[in-house]
Amino acid sequence: MEYKSKEAYYQHLTTRAALPDGFLCSALQIEFIPAEKPGKAKMNLSLILLEEETRNFGACFTSNSFPGAPVLIGRKRLSGESIRGVMINNKIANVGVSGGVDDSLGLLAELAGHIPCAPEALLPASTGIIGWRLPVKAMRAVLPGLAAGLKPGSILPVAEAVMTTDTFAKIRKINVGSGSILGIAKGAGMIEPNLATMLVFIMTDLHVEREELRSMLSRCVSRTFNRITIDGDQSTSDMALVLSSGLKDPVGANKFEEALFSLCSKLAADIVRSGEGVAHVVHLKIVSELPEELVVGAGKNLLNSPLVKTAVYGNDPNVGRILSALGDYLGNSGVAIDTKNLSVHLGGIEIYANGGFRLDRNKEEKLSYYLKDCSFDPAVKGYPQHERSVEVEIFLGKEGKSYEFLGADLSYEYIRENAEYRS
Amino acid sequence: MEYKSKEAYYQHLTTRAALPDGFLCSALQIEFIPAEKPGKAKMNLSLILLEEETRNFGACFTSNSFPGAPVLIGRKRLSGESIRGVMINNKIANVGVSGGVDDSLGLLAELAGHIPCAPEALLPASTGIIGWRLPVKAMRAVLPGLAAGLKPGSILPVAEAVMTTDTFAKIRKINVGSGSILGIAKGAGMIEPNLATMLVFIMTDLHVEREELRSMLSRCVSRTFNRITIDGDQSTSDMALVLSSGLKDPVGANKFEEALFSLCSKLAADIVRSGEGVAHVVHLKIVSELPEELVVGAGKNLLNSPLVKTAVYGNDPNVGRILSALGDYLGNSGVAIDTKNLSVHLGGIEIYANGGFRLDRNKEEKLSYYLKDCSFDPAVKGYPQHERSVEVEIFLGKEGKSYEFLGADLSYEYIRENAEYRS
Repeated sequence: MEYKSKEAYYQHLTTRAALPDGFLCSALQIEFIPAEKPGKAKMNLSLILLEEETRNFGACFTSNSFPGAPVLIGRKRLSGESIRGVMINNKIANVGVSGGVDDSLGLLAELAGHIPCAPEALLPASTGIIGWRLPVKAMRAVLPGLAAGLKPGSILPVAEAVMTTDTFAKIRKINVGSGSILGIAKGAGMIEPNLATMLVFIMTDLHVEREELRSMLSRCVSRTFNRITIDGDQSTSDMALVLSSGLKDPVGANKFEEALFSLCSKLAADIVRSGEGVAHVVHLKIVSELPEELVVGAGKNLLNSPLVKTAVYGNDPNVGRILSALGDYLGNSGVAIDTKNLSVHLGGIEIYANGGFRLDRNKEEKLSYYLKDCSFDPAVKGYPQHERSVEVEIFLGKEGKSYEFLGADLSYEYIRENAEYRS
Repeated sequence: MEYKSKEAYYQHLTTRAALPDGFLCSALQIEFIPAEKPGKAKMNLSLILLEEETRNFGACFTSNSFPGAPVLIGRKRLSGESIRGVMINNKIANVGVSGGVDDSLGLLAELAGHIPCAPEALLPASTGIIGWRLPVKAMRAVLPGLAAGLKPGSILPVAEAVMTTDTFAKIRKINVGSGSILGIAKGAGMIEPNLATMLVFIMTDLHVEREELRSMLSRCVSRTFNRITIDGDQSTSDMALVLSSGLKDPVGANKFEEALFSLCSKLAADIVRSGEGVAHVVHLKIVSELPEELVVGAGKNLLNSPLVKTAVYGNDPNVGRILSALGDYLGNSGVAIDTKNLSVHLGGIEIYANGGFRLDRNKEEKLSYYLKDCSFDPAVKGYPQHERSVEVEIFLGKEGKSYEFLGADLSYEYIRENAEYRS
């Protein structure tokens, strides 16, 4: 459904922002003077807290070999007995800084005193510039206020506080049984330009046991957040966290996982759609019998190809680039393409089949109109942006499993956002 | 050495353009009307020919799973008894077209009649748009002229004929013993925007046996052309060909391979430097004890990171992105980084050591000046472009083998070139 203005869309967003039972949240902003750069800077702090500690929580972290301090701390606390909540800051990622882990731990310990709870029951999450140190003093000063501000109701203040250059707040909610699952996300790519962090926080009042919750999260993340790509860079700080208050009766495991998967899919799509500088979202479907790892690699490689991305940006149905990018990845993996059983569709139009391209002047014109129609123009299309995406379908062989991926084009705005931010 | 104008640089180029003994060449241009698009188009045809057939030749081809017709033909002819030469066309790559192989074979057979030689002794090479069919009729009409135009002397006409949007012709020559090795290249990336083909033709009058020549070519290609990257896309038509006329006495194998490696290094650097839209060339050195495959993967991934590339374009010493891109690749490969023994330099300035960034306001300013100084401004810097490159050095551990890579930044011009070409 599309809305005429961003305001109208935001009004709609509030209808899905209600915290599940047993959750509180709080958010505020500070001003500080960074040690690394002249002038003032702003940072948002926010807090998601359970009314009671829970042992039913789980998290997936970045596999980047150069992880931030919050990821190092989070990985350890994953094996802890129980958890109470998570403190999030934007602006500085706390990565690659001597003393970064101690900075985070010190802040959490102090915050725990104001709640009160055990310091080990709090997780940190940060996004922003790599190599800068957290402004610990300025952050400490507002911790009492952050704790005092906790209330039930809407997650919207937190969904907005975690944003950097995301173009809209990302909130999704699914009602299941007598409870609900609520998720918010901070977008990946073309974001706070020192990195492209994805932060996802999922809250539910439905009771789910820890081990089950963790395996469901892991499966859902691998099929949703791990299949979106904006610029191919996995950040040092990516994390997805799930917390269950357990106040509502459990639903069947299948039913819960289905809802969790649907929630993650929607948030993942929101992340791509809200990337600044995205003029087209690309939805790629590959049907193949090849091993999953190969198909996922090929799909992401295709969506990350600068030649494919710039063609889409230019509304140019330059379909040779799609085949070339696919062949590049598969060739390097030692896989031959059976071109006789390869077929490719763009916007539902067949462009390759039976061992050759199926193109003519008329089709090329149609494809070009199709690409233009999938680009985002708020004056024409309303909000939320990118309800329509460029659909690419590739059948590698006659049958097989179906995989879906989301990506974006490569625009002048992307370069502006990422080249000019700090200069 | 830098020249004030492009003309002065071209004058200098002619000093290294002399064909080795036993080689002839020819080039001409045709106009034709493509079946796929209204209006006229231009295509260059060229021919490199040995005076006598040789069994001492070798080639490396793209590993793309969607190879063009010339690659399919070339791979077969590699096992043939001997070779006489190669016919090259730009504008259309002859990829993904039903009948493409027959088109190429027919043209070679007809050309062979005009030389005369056995049709199997000729190789095809094509670069340009994927999915279009060769204008066989228009090409056939000029084959007698192409054969008649063969002469010894300068390779420059061919080096220019194979160009598309390359900003300068690429010719390198090395004298060894009583003979020489001459190489020309058509650049990769940001080129004829349907793909980013690299074509390399190397000619020598020094006698080298086939098997030895082939293993030397393979080793040199893997350490030079396979370590450059502009946009990470390996084309459907990449090839590197070496031909020996054997008219001059052999030099030692080591001596020849050293010269061949040096020639390939220089041509590879020329390819990156002549990419349209390249504002900075990036020269990356990694010292590591990790397996070669991992280091090569990490190096290329770093140079392909859009976040790193845009930062370099913006003269922004956003060093966190370098570490994040490195950690992304190594993490996905299951390799932990020992940050204590990691050190990173940018332009000779230490930016990371002993487990933390080594940055301050003064250093950041220096780094920003350094990046500006490495960008290309013909009015100030003269030709050839990019004599200076951005030097990044990464020591992964205390010691190890040294690997070198060349890449480029990501500029507005890249997007313009690749998004707007066909629209």
